[in-house]
Amino acid sequence: MNESTKGPNPAQPGPGSGEAHPLDVAIRLAADDGSGLLGHTSPAYGNMIGPFGGVIASTLLNAALIDAARLGDPVALTVNFAGPIADGQFRVDARAVRTNRSTQHWWIELAQGDAVCATATAVFARRRHTWASTEIGFPDPPHAAQIERAKALPRVEWTRRYEMRFLAGSMPDFSQPERDADHTSALWLRDDPPRALDFVSLAAICDAFFPRIFLRRSKWTPAGTVSLTTYFHVDAQTLAANGSESVFGTARAQHFGRGFFDQTAEVWSADGTLLANSHQIVYYKE
Amino acid sequence: MNESTKGPNPAQPGPGSGEAHPLDVAIRLAADDGSGLLGHTSPAYGNMIGPFGGVIASTLLNAALIDAARLGDPVALTVNFAGPIADGQFRVDARAVRTNRSTQHWWIELAQGDAVCATATAVFARRRHTWASTEIGFPDPPHAAQIERAKALPRVEWTRRYEMRFLAGSMPDFSQPERDADHTSALWLRDDPPRALDFVSLAAICDAFFPRIFLRRSKWTPAGTVSLTTYFHVDAQTLAANGSESVFGTARAQHFGRGFFDQTAEVWSADGTLLANSHQIVYYKE
Repeated sequence: MNESTKGPNPAQPGPGSGEAHPLDVAIRLAADDGSGLLGHTSPAYGNMIGPFGGVIASTLLNAALIDAARLGDPVALTVNFAGPIADGQFRVDARAVRTNRSTQHWWIELAQGDAVCATATAVFARRRHTWASTEIGFPDPPHAAQIERAKALPRVEWTRRYEMRFLAGSMPDFSQPERDADHTSALWLRDDPPRALDFVSLAAICDAFFPRIFLRRSKWTPAGTVSLTTYFHVDAQTLAANGSESVFGTARAQHFGRGFFDQTAEVWSADGTLLANSHQIVYYKE
Repeated sequence: MNESTKGPNPAQPGPGSGEAHPLDVAIRLAADDGSGLLGHTSPAYGNMIGPFGGVIASTLLNAALIDAARLGDPVALTVNFAGPIADGQFRVDARAVRTNRSTQHWWIELAQGDAVCATATAVFARRRHTWASTEIGFPDPPHAAQIERAKALPRVEWTRRYEMRFLAGSMPDFSQPERDADHTSALWLRDDPPRALDFVSLAAICDAFFPRIFLRRSKWTPAGTVSLTTYFHVDAQTLAANGSESVFGTARAQHFGRGFFDQTAEVWSADGTLLANSHQIVYYKE
């Protein structure tokens, strides 16, 4: 996709707001000649091979968010990473398969040529005020500014797009001998450059927790997310209140075995509101 | 669908094995004249209104399992409950959208007339032997036989299809005054009549944990699962080793708010193998 042929896009700042944030560039979708959308991988969010999965999740969610038929805010998003995504252009098809009075269900598919590379389902809803309770405790960590920023990982460009400040469970030093270790992480993180939090950035952040197998075994292992489910617990207005402040994330695994492990993450605003929790199943080798 | 017109179905016991288990009857799918499958809701798994969601999840998984193109065992299943399913016939369309060397991705849809009632994605894989570790502890409960079986719920037929023995968090007595209470459950459960565990029965069991809002508030509240994701941690052979023994399940919530809450469950075999974990987001009112 050529920059000059791109159509207007709600996820892109309007005229006068200055240069677009790299995330908004990465998730940009333009109408193609048919009923689909065209996107393009972004070098700014490159992974070791192909794009960072979080930005693909964000792009697929964006396809529903920018649709004129969209109802309410996202409540659930499941993204399945079906095959490698080559650097370059891709097509996204998003379809509201069912719209109820207050909820809406989406099918979303990302393809390159004839190959389906990712699929997603999303549930949107008009959220109402109800009785509410958070059943897990905010970890109440020291302020982000009190913790040193972690270095980005070499050859993993997307890690430069996040300020990460680890209270626990940063990426191990793979030059050290392999050993059994704690696989949990707790960290402050936000976009770099800072960007006001919204559903697309939160969807990406939910996939920004390194594969737990790296931490658990203190060694690099081929691994990749196969399926990622995120539940959003707040509406757009509550998210917007976070502004560009860091959010606090915790991540851990329950089981590694037979080539797949799961990991679960919670993402909190700085004031202790649970914004989302997210679950994924990850392929690993050996 | 008329009984006499049903085709053969792998999920149905062969001749000589006696009467089919009610679960196998409920999830039965027969080829229709086109490329789709036809199923029928089962009174044996009726909910207060419509069918028990767990059996719908099981039916959708079955559509992929019985497909001749299916590769390996299920690893991840996400089912979205898009709208009410009326008692009667439904159509299921299942399509392998991507088949790799060792993984396969499915789109599955359940419709009545023109209305999509449920959608699902599933990931299947040929599972390999790898390094393995379970990071959470088996609760090591007293043997199922030492715990009294809970009564089925009035007007909720599917609860008669499970032997449930609660160590904690059984259904509260709604005739008692409303009060804040613990929302976690721990129980032994198995099919009634007993049935050898497999992926379809495990998929249904993962949805057999009552909505946490009932327990948390000790009152009946309109509630229904909107999206359900299950990760399977074992292969078919390991599941089969469980036979018809009870499995041990634990369930809890993280957050209730703005009309939706999440709940998470783990399901263990009697010998302490983590078989699956499952996450869902549930609509509730007031």
